[in-house]
Amino acid sequence: MDTDNGTDFRIDLNADLGEGFGAWSMGEDAAMLALVTTANIACGGHAGDPRTMRRCAGLAAAAGVAITAHVSYPDLQGFGRRFLDMEADDLRDLVIAQTGALQAVARAEGAAVRGVKPHGALYNALARHPGQAAAVVAAMADLGGDLALVAAPGSEAARRAEKAGIPVVLEAFADRAYRPDGTLVPRTAPGAVRTDQAEVLAQVLRIARTGAVLAEDGTTVRLDAASICLHGDTPGAVDLARAVRRSLEEAGIRLAPALP
Amino acid sequence: MDTDNGTDFRIDLNADLGEGFGAWSMGEDAAMLALVTTANIACGGHAGDPRTMRRCAGLAAAAGVAITAHVSYPDLQGFGRRFLDMEADDLRDLVIAQTGALQAVARAEGAAVRGVKPHGALYNALARHPGQAAAVVAAMADLGGDLALVAAPGSEAARRAEKAGIPVVLEAFADRAYRPDGTLVPRTAPGAVRTDQAEVLAQVLRIARTGAVLAEDGTTVRLDAASICLHGDTPGAVDLARAVRRSLEEAGIRLAPALP
Amino acid sequence: MDTDNGTDFRIDLNADLGEGFGAWSMGEDAAMLALVTTANIACGGHAGDPRTMRRCAGLAAAAGVAITAHVSYPDLQGFGRRFLDMEADDLRDLVIAQTGALQAVARAEGAAVRGVKPHGALYNALARHPGQAAAVVAAMADLGGDLALVAAPGSEAARRAEKAGIPVVLEAFADRAYRPDGTLVPRTAPGAVRTDQAEVLAQVLRIARTGAVLAEDGTTVRLDAASICLHGDTPGAVDLARAVRRSLEEAGIRLAPALP
Amino acid sequence: MDTDNGTDFRIDLNADLGEGFGAWSMGEDAAMLALVTTANIACGGHAGDPRTMRRCAGLAAAAGVAITAHVSYPDLQGFGRRFLDMEADDLRDLVIAQTGALQAVARAEGAAVRGVKPHGALYNALARHPGQAAAVVAAMADLGGDLALVAAPGSEAARRAEKAGIPVVLEAFADRAYRPDGTLVPRTAPGAVRTDQAEVLAQVLRIARTGAVLAEDGTTVRLDAASICLHGDTPGAVDLARAVRRSLEEAGIRLAPALP
Repeated sequence: MDTDNGTDFRIDLNADLGEGFGAWSMGEDAAMLALVTTANIACGGHAGDPRTMRRCAGLAAAAGVAITAHVSYPDLQGFGRRFLDMEADDLRDLVIAQTGALQAVARAEGAAVRGVKPHGALYNALARHPGQAAAVVAAMADLGGDLALVAAPGSEAARRAEKAGIPVVLEAFADRAYRPDGTLVPRTAPGAVRTDQAEVLAQVLRIARTGAVLAEDGTTVRLDAASICLHGDTPGAVDLARAVRRSLEEAGIRLAPALP
Repeated sequence: MDTDNGTDFRIDLNADLGEGFGAWSMGEDAAMLALVTTANIACGGHAGDPRTMRRCAGLAAAAGVAITAHVSYPDLQGFGRRFLDMEADDLRDLVIAQTGALQAVARAEGAAVRGVKPHGALYNALARHPGQAAAVVAAMADLGGDLALVAAPGSEAARRAEKAGIPVVLEAFADRAYRPDGTLVPRTAPGAVRTDQAEVLAQVLRIARTGAVLAEDGTTVRLDAASICLHGDTPGAVDLARAVRRSLEEAGIRLAPALP
Repeated sequence: MDTDNGTDFRIDLNADLGEGFGAWSMGEDAAMLALVTTANIACGGHAGDPRTMRRCAGLAAAAGVAITAHVSYPDLQGFGRRFLDMEADDLRDLVIAQTGALQAVARAEGAAVRGVKPHGALYNALARHPGQAAAVVAAMADLGGDLALVAAPGSEAARRAEKAGIPVVLEAFADRAYRPDGTLVPRTAPGAVRTDQAEVLAQVLRIARTGAVLAEDGTTVRLDAASICLHGDTPGAVDLARAVRRSLEEAGIRLAPALP
Repeated sequence: MDTDNGTDFRIDLNADLGEGFGAWSMGEDAAMLALVTTANIACGGHAGDPRTMRRCAGLAAAAGVAITAHVSYPDLQGFGRRFLDMEADDLRDLVIAQTGALQAVARAEGAAVRGVKPHGALYNALARHPGQAAAVVAAMADLGGDLALVAAPGSEAARRAEKAGIPVVLEAFADRAYRPDGTLVPRTAPGAVRTDQAEVLAQVLRIARTGAVLAEDGTTVRLDAASICLHGDTPGAVDLARAVRRSLEEAGIRLAPALP
């Protein structure tokens, strides 16, 4: 599919939005919704009271942006960034309840939830934690419909979901460095987050055209990523998202949700 | 429809169940589910973490008992029994989110939520609070489907829901005393809760046959109640529920959910 | 005490700070702490996880700013701005527990809590709610020490605290309009919040010099205010606070905590 | 100190109490307070709203029972039984805030908090987690006073607290089986919890007389335990506590708090 004008390529851009709670806000939802094709909306675990959920779902629907339920541990204080050793049944039912809450709220805005994306420490746990990965996949099976799981390439959750016949959307990060085995360079390591915009744009184009990234050591790592995750809450997030989108459009790559 | 054997009469028996949270439990769900025809399941406001919700929904489905979402203020500490002056939009979206969470969890157990019953202080507020009543009715409209609102006869919420074309199930209490205007004798007044079982059974039969109760002063108050609420968490609750059910069955009154 | 250089006048400037929670922040604590003499620090009810509490207490101590416990209903979602109909004993013990938490955290930073200031809807309720006012005063009595209650002039809480021998600091608002009876013009009414800086500065100087304000109708209302409350979370809050402080200093008025 | 009548021996009996929350209760506080010498009172993390804390502290004071703050992860839903990967500073400040809340509430009942006992998953984490153990010890140092840390023999927390000069009370469990290295047989293993009352009583007497237990393999494990932990929330807890107390009294062993 390697053509000069690139019209055969398409990619999804997703960002984590609706991450306020009551009087607190985070990130710039409206600006990001004009740039991404999928919004991962917090649904009460790490952020997202019902009204915030609804406002974000309504904005996403108005912008023609697809919606996933950004499910997470019940930990407002830690913003879902701390591992919580939940029992599998508790986690399964939590994912179902958070997703169901967002589904009902989105429906009230004429929108539909098309996928589930675990957040923060839960996302990280799903890379290797068999119990929690199985719990999330069980939740997806219980939720049914055509909901897709947005997951990290090579993660335990992705493997189990594929085996269970759950639609899976693999994603890569625009600004994170990768190791040769396809895992992320940990945030604590130097160079974990790319700050050079040219590098970020090069990585984004490579993902969009080949589904792969260049690892730290320069080797090509195939990720089969159908979606690129942009951060919505860091300084300069909107500017970077705008540059990424422009770069993709100029390369003739079509932007569209990867969800079924 | 006044026949000797009473076979033309039918009534719903509902009780508030699933009111535990994590390690805490309240009431005897399994025993009550063998006696009632509708279970109002807590969905996170005053009680009911996702796993507790699911367990109760599964038990209800297995018992052939209909399910309503027992929505309430976000107040675990006060068990939803304290008025909270929520803005209308916050309350509307809260009702939608709590109901949606239970819908998804119940669906995972092969069960459907057929109605919404406000809990505690929210239930009481809906008798006269225009803003909160409008918010709950707006939530019902947004939720759609054939969900019915379980409400108190003469309440602001019931009036507004009927006007909006929302199915309404009016309920009466088995063991509460009524004033001539159809409102409950406040719990703080003497005689508010009937403790004499014969009186309770007489009230239950009168409701089932006529939809009415006798007020404190002996006058008949027409409530058009299609459902009788039994308390699930008081001492002796199961024994009383058993006596009520037996009494209704012996009178030839059919027990069936009142929900659409 | 009307002298040319005004050195006999002193006033306290207080602001609500530490109103973040986990990953969320609100207002500009560091900038405000350079301008006020008392910081009301959120302690878990409407905002303020332990680490946020401690950080703010440490900054206040470093800035030589006095600390009050900014107690509030347990309502993160509503930011403590919604009336909650708590039982008196629950409210009393809540105020004690929140204050005790802040006391311990402040002590760890070498600082002491010198007063209690109710927040938001609780502050408003204490104007006229006998049960909640009595509960807060009972909490102050239980807390003991020399803790002062920061309260609105003419409020039920102020009256009861004075009668109970609790130190009371009355406060007035820099930018709110007053009615002739000394109560605030409700936020929903036009002109409730003064936006003209000259008017705000005039009001601030009048309070500092006379403890009084001019009501809407131009009459003088004696408030006996020993402290002026500045908002910390509105746009332009820091600029206004800076102007207020400069204006007071230029008028030779001494800025110092009003707490015992 | 091995004398015939055993009057030179003394031991502390502690139990986890005050583990209700709002309308929910757990265990039989009043009955247990008549039997133990130290009450570990939940202070908001896994259980224990302020009113419940106060009620339990008041009962403990009336019974002449010493009080520790039963600090735990902020996880009502999981009852503090799930590991939460908190940052050290967050955990440190959480322990300070929870303890401070209980101190203030207890003081209102004329009682004093004399120690800190971590609960559930936090207790378990402190056996080996350097970061969390250091955080709790830092909290103890910040809290100051003569507060003792109640800890497991050989735990990381006990070692660090001793090194930091924090008073430490080591405890052993009445009904848990031990491994030769002094650690508990995990609950998931067979025989982890002793159900034979004679065995429990023998273990209790051995601890009281020697500070040691017999491990699974029959070897003697020296624990230097000065306190014995009884469970307060299991079926038969009160009966077992009564038998333990009677057995100790009959052996002439003095029951008294181990806290400084």
